[in-house]
Amino acid sequence: MIENKEKTNLDAYGEFGLIDLLTKEIKLKNKSSIMGVGDDAAIIDSGNRLQLVSTDLLVEGIHFDMHYTPLRHLGYKAIASNLSDIAAMNAKPEQVLVGIAVSSKYTVEAIEELYLGMRICCQRYGVDLVGGDTTSSAGGLFISVTVIGYASEEKIVKRSTANEHDLICVSGDLGSAYMGLLILEREKQVFLANPQAQPDLEGFDYVLERQLKPEPRLDIVQILEEKDIVPTSMIDISDGLASEIMHICKESDKGCRLYEEKIPIDTKTYDSCLEFGITPSVAALNGGEDYELLFTIRQDDYEKIKHSPDITVIGYITEKAEGCSLITKDDKLIELKAQGWNAFVKHTNDEKAE
Amino acid sequence: MIENKEKTNLDAYGEFGLIDLLTKEIKLKNKSSIMGVGDDAAIIDSGNRLQLVSTDLLVEGIHFDMHYTPLRHLGYKAIASNLSDIAAMNAKPEQVLVGIAVSSKYTVEAIEELYLGMRICCQRYGVDLVGGDTTSSAGGLFISVTVIGYASEEKIVKRSTANEHDLICVSGDLGSAYMGLLILEREKQVFLANPQAQPDLEGFDYVLERQLKPEPRLDIVQILEEKDIVPTSMIDISDGLASEIMHICKESDKGCRLYEEKIPIDTKTYDSCLEFGITPSVAALNGGEDYELLFTIRQDDYEKIKHSPDITVIGYITEKAEGCSLITKDDKLIELKAQGWNAFVKHTNDEKAE
Repeated sequence: MIENKEKTNLDAYGEFGLIDLLTKEIKLKNKSSIMGVGDDAAIIDSGNRLQLVSTDLLVEGIHFDMHYTPLRHLGYKAIASNLSDIAAMNAKPEQVLVGIAVSSKYTVEAIEELYLGMRICCQRYGVDLVGGDTTSSAGGLFISVTVIGYASEEKIVKRSTANEHDLICVSGDLGSAYMGLLILEREKQVFLANPQAQPDLEGFDYVLERQLKPEPRLDIVQILEEKDIVPTSMIDISDGLASEIMHICKESDKGCRLYEEKIPIDTKTYDSCLEFGITPSVAALNGGEDYELLFTIRQDDYEKIKHSPDITVIGYITEKAEGCSLITKDDKLIELKAQGWNAFVKHTNDEKAE
Repeated sequence: MIENKEKTNLDAYGEFGLIDLLTKEIKLKNKSSIMGVGDDAAIIDSGNRLQLVSTDLLVEGIHFDMHYTPLRHLGYKAIASNLSDIAAMNAKPEQVLVGIAVSSKYTVEAIEELYLGMRICCQRYGVDLVGGDTTSSAGGLFISVTVIGYASEEKIVKRSTANEHDLICVSGDLGSAYMGLLILEREKQVFLANPQAQPDLEGFDYVLERQLKPEPRLDIVQILEEKDIVPTSMIDISDGLASEIMHICKESDKGCRLYEEKIPIDTKTYDSCLEFGITPSVAALNGGEDYELLFTIRQDDYEKIKHSPDITVIGYITEKAEGCSLITKDDKLIELKAQGWNAFVKHTNDEKAE
């Protein structure tokens, strides 16, 4: 993307010059953003709303691989995955603060690409970048994002408040981001074996986009508002459906039944699962990084969502003693296990998906 | 400090287990901290106050050197340096969010030490740790800290609002943290040359503590409040006096005169400067990491602070055309240059201090 442009070493700008360069395009849009980048701290006015604050670290070689991650997409995803945490509280994000640590192998133009991706995502979702820190690292790229969102007290949804008999719902479809990752990993191996080889990514646009440029489901927060539904619990799916529903059940002191046949999987995800010999529901249960919303609603609210194309009911909450289980397509009951992403355990692709 | 205890690999806990372990001691104390660690985001109620938010990244090999930095001190300093950003806005910090990325060379016990230092600093300054992220890194330790503080609108002090004739004040004394760093670097070289050598740190307690365990000057914010002074501009000294006063002058569109003889330097800092052959005022001007407050006040407020042992007037603000300069002890006028810390430029110790 930036291969043919002139390159500038980071030390040509220095820390403050680089911050000026990266933030000069920023215009604050939210009434709550009183003052942004340029002082010891940003100034925020929350009015009489409650605030939701979340922070995340993205680490090169752990969360992303520079072999196949365009920097603009990476910037977009760094913001998007954090906005998803605010969506998961049923709230609206308005500010982000970004810290980046970069090694000297990155050029000013590369960091501008990263920031451009961040700005595009901020713009799309009406979020202000109000603060940041830019420094060097001894090796690799590290991104920290802190996001601030807002909601009135009665709208905030936690993980810990699901009730027995509540319906378990999920937005969009699952497993695609993981299949996108497998395809990128496959092409990386081909490339490493033969650097002249052209990547074979044709037909995989959907799953690749889901991996490289996920969208936070703030539209679902909007739909729930319009339909006058406050979910009884909610979480975003960053580590895989199984891991996330188990978080809700653990925090709520409940159990659950999921139906394999109800789990929404796009046909393109299905096709790539077949190509890789992976059971599609396994990709959905353990794949992660879909950034869809997983939430529970009271049965009374079912009528309001049953025709929503973007919301699927996949099971229900039980009492704790029943545990967390999945009813398979051939009607077997199997215990759910969280085999999703764990930053401290090395997975092979096989282990993760099977 | 933790050398004789049993060591546990990080993967024995996994990401969620580690977060549980590190956060189980946390009790929220501020009324504004509604809900802390354990959901997609923390919940905060700012009441009718404005909020100050700042974020920082601390990177192994750039901001700290594991050869001589005890993890407990590092945790303390990571929090303290961020609280200092809130003090620099004349505000009170109440929440922090912490992200850490660690390579597998660190044990669970090591990360507990780091967190213990963070908790001690939070406790000392009445701040709640409300959120965080814990992940692995391909190499080294990365710490991101986001801090949230509060003040009423009329009390917030920016960098950009200094006026001509305002007095320039500084809290505490300067240059000590830099001398502490030089001593630690010297002992590191000795150790690398001869691993059996015992470190020669005797008599350097003050400057070492200033480097390893700095304190945010929230007491100065309190004193200003008690004396009914709202500074006309303020910044904290993380990069050296020269760099910081030039930030205030640039943002305020003004110039300044500093008096070398007025710059407060502790006798212990002075002694170590002599040992290293460094001019003490040069350590103060360019050394950095003192985390003292640099602020300007109206001349009318002089009477209120003239007997404060912890506040020194070191110069005054001029119109922009006069530039930023220092009157030396032998009455020469020299132009100030920002030679402080710049994360993107490699300094030798000599370059930095001379």
